[in-house]
Amino acid sequence: MNSAIITIGDEILIGQVVDTNAVWISQQLNANGVRVGEMVTISDDSDQIRLTLDRYMGKYDLLIMTGGLGPTKDDMTKQTLAEYFNSKMITHPEVQEKIISYFRDRGRSMIESNRSQADVPDNCRVLMNHHGTAPGMWFEQKGTILVSLPGVPYEMKGLMNDHLIPEIQKRVVVPHVVHKTIMTQGVPESYLAELLKEWEEGLPDCVKLAYLPRPGIVRLRLTIIDKCASEAEQMLEVIIGKLLNIIPQHIFGYDDMSLEESLGKLLKENKLTLSTAESCTGGNIARLITSVPGSSGYFTGSVIAYENRIKSDVLGVDALVIDNEGAVSKEVVEQMARGIMDLYGTNAAIATSGIAGPDGGTEEKPVGTVWLCVTYGDKILTKKFRFSGTRDRIIDQASFSAMQLLRRVVLDMA
Amino acid sequence: MNSAIITIGDEILIGQVVDTNAVWISQQLNANGVRVGEMVTISDDSDQIRLTLDRYMGKYDLLIMTGGLGPTKDDMTKQTLAEYFNSKMITHPEVQEKIISYFRDRGRSMIESNRSQADVPDNCRVLMNHHGTAPGMWFEQKGTILVSLPGVPYEMKGLMNDHLIPEIQKRVVVPHVVHKTIMTQGVPESYLAELLKEWEEGLPDCVKLAYLPRPGIVRLRLTIIDKCASEAEQMLEVIIGKLLNIIPQHIFGYDDMSLEESLGKLLKENKLTLSTAESCTGGNIARLITSVPGSSGYFTGSVIAYENRIKSDVLGVDALVIDNEGAVSKEVVEQMARGIMDLYGTNAAIATSGIAGPDGGTEEKPVGTVWLCVTYGDKILTKKFRFSGTRDRIIDQASFSAMQLLRRVVLDMA
Repeated sequence: MNSAIITIGDEILIGQVVDTNAVWISQQLNANGVRVGEMVTISDDSDQIRLTLDRYMGKYDLLIMTGGLGPTKDDMTKQTLAEYFNSKMITHPEVQEKIISYFRDRGRSMIESNRSQADVPDNCRVLMNHHGTAPGMWFEQKGTILVSLPGVPYEMKGLMNDHLIPEIQKRVVVPHVVHKTIMTQGVPESYLAELLKEWEEGLPDCVKLAYLPRPGIVRLRLTIIDKCASEAEQMLEVIIGKLLNIIPQHIFGYDDMSLEESLGKLLKENKLTLSTAESCTGGNIARLITSVPGSSGYFTGSVIAYENRIKSDVLGVDALVIDNEGAVSKEVVEQMARGIMDLYGTNAAIATSGIAGPDGGTEEKPVGTVWLCVTYGDKILTKKFRFSGTRDRIIDQASFSAMQLLRRVVLDMA
Repeated sequence: MNSAIITIGDEILIGQVVDTNAVWISQQLNANGVRVGEMVTISDDSDQIRLTLDRYMGKYDLLIMTGGLGPTKDDMTKQTLAEYFNSKMITHPEVQEKIISYFRDRGRSMIESNRSQADVPDNCRVLMNHHGTAPGMWFEQKGTILVSLPGVPYEMKGLMNDHLIPEIQKRVVVPHVVHKTIMTQGVPESYLAELLKEWEEGLPDCVKLAYLPRPGIVRLRLTIIDKCASEAEQMLEVIIGKLLNIIPQHIFGYDDMSLEESLGKLLKENKLTLSTAESCTGGNIARLITSVPGSSGYFTGSVIAYENRIKSDVLGVDALVIDNEGAVSKEVVEQMARGIMDLYGTNAAIATSGIAGPDGGTEEKPVGTVWLCVTYGDKILTKKFRFSGTRDRIIDQASFSAMQLLRRVVLDMA
């Protein structure tokens, strides 16, 4: 089964919104053996919608269209689809009942625009929306299934999970394509490629490799084509085994596991508790760590010491050392780490101090200079980095590098 | 001038990467009067690239293609373009020199794959890349300009800024389309639509309105078509003036100004200093605030008190009150706010305590229950919220609501 994803929304074409819906949908489709051939974003405009349908109907088995079904007036998808598929609009009693009870349950009064969401084309299959008010619509013509979903991510995901994915699982025989992603931290893409040259050249012909960089992280995606599951599994075991011999200290997980999840898992397994003392990362490490459900089991909290006074008053860093060495120094970041361990009573800590920019750099300490310190019991590891890029990139790289350093110290791979 | 954006990358089609490049490019094009008619993502595959070029060459004035020019082996765009435009590959001396000095300046050794990046089709105009090693390429055929750029965001942006945008500004007469976005916080989309119904109905015919929701924030985008700049400006003044009479306390800025920038500006203007005491938001507010360059001028830091012990030991919250009222309560969040103001010596503070989920909810305090407290001098405002959605959504909504509450207290609009 092959598919295309059509996103409707002027807000995306003028660059105001990132189309995260298409990403999520493609993940689900791929995981269920549906190839995504194209993703396209078009305007909330009848002519453009018709033109795109003309182009894709009959070419793909499945078209998933999102957006343009909200209660506000700028949406015209439903009307256009009704015309395209020669439908009459009817009020759908079950949807109407659903909308009424949706508002009743939340103790909210209903608005006229919500009421009209119960109107649907008479020749589509209605997909009940248990997460909002706009129903999904399923049309089948010219050998193509077209499904229209609301653009609100929460509702779109609900409709995909409730209706589409079960339906796809019934219809699709999963083809022999296996994806495996290896998550690495600490080596930039071109260096990693050089480091892994021999390994890459030794890959079997049916294995495709892609390098997917993010600030501070490079993902290695292996794709195995036309092998049965057990054969692919065996192949992967050998390939990853070899990789683990080359860069063990840089691999933190597989298949898009995040570094914060990986670190959390390690802390939990080792019954460790963590606190952070952040200066240049400004709370970003704490935010990443607490984005993981259950992180309260191992994460105690942080002191964000943006001002130097807080570094000495709250974390107990020697003010004289700050004066002599500067806040961005080995001594200060080590005292910050020890200070937060004492104050928060944890057995592991991360501390950061650096210059995130765009201003504040000097010749000796240019923008991007970051000192990181991680502690675990009596062990302490302090490292100086020189990151490049924008403020956000520097903060991200510092955050990921610090988390991976702590993993390495705990795993005795520093 | 109209355009389409073509993104090349299997990693996007399988949902591993969000295509932020296309968003950024469309922002730049729109700002310079180039309409973006379509965005499409296709596979890193010669046939698919050729098919897409066949479809778009001659239809749009400008095609911007990103991706597929990196040093690793999974990229084949350059080769395909050379064949499509009947080119011969030649080594470009200036690019070669650039690559050599790029590596020399960084004290890194050069890799063979980097060397081959100096090979370019002989009939394209080469766009020098001052931010990396892969050059951009500019082809003109059938009345269409095709520009191919590397997919690394940092390099792509550099090439756009250095070459494309100046070139576009020379060629384009900006058409009479004016966008204005009003940023609001605190009212969900459908309520806002109801609240603004009369205002919306009173908009002139040439003005288009779109509601663009994000967790905790709704943007109102006004588009004025076919009016000259001064006329549009005048119209906007009247329209926004009316809006400010209806929801003054919910508007925090215009044209995609972020709430953290808006708050930062207000704090700076009023010479205030801010600290945060975060429980359920886990550092997200601090991270947002410190993402703004220059935030060290008004932001002192935070205590992230994820564990209750830290709330009492570090912030001085009465442990008895935590036992009796629970950590998610009015009393605790108020004591947290007062505690951080004292400890960090600031004249404003934000405190948060809530249940971000997915676990930890009770009948009395379900997941999504969040207490927020903001203080400014002697003023204190404490509010209970009930947010819905995933853990990330709840954290985002709580963070934005807290920042807007503080703005309102400072502006005396609470």
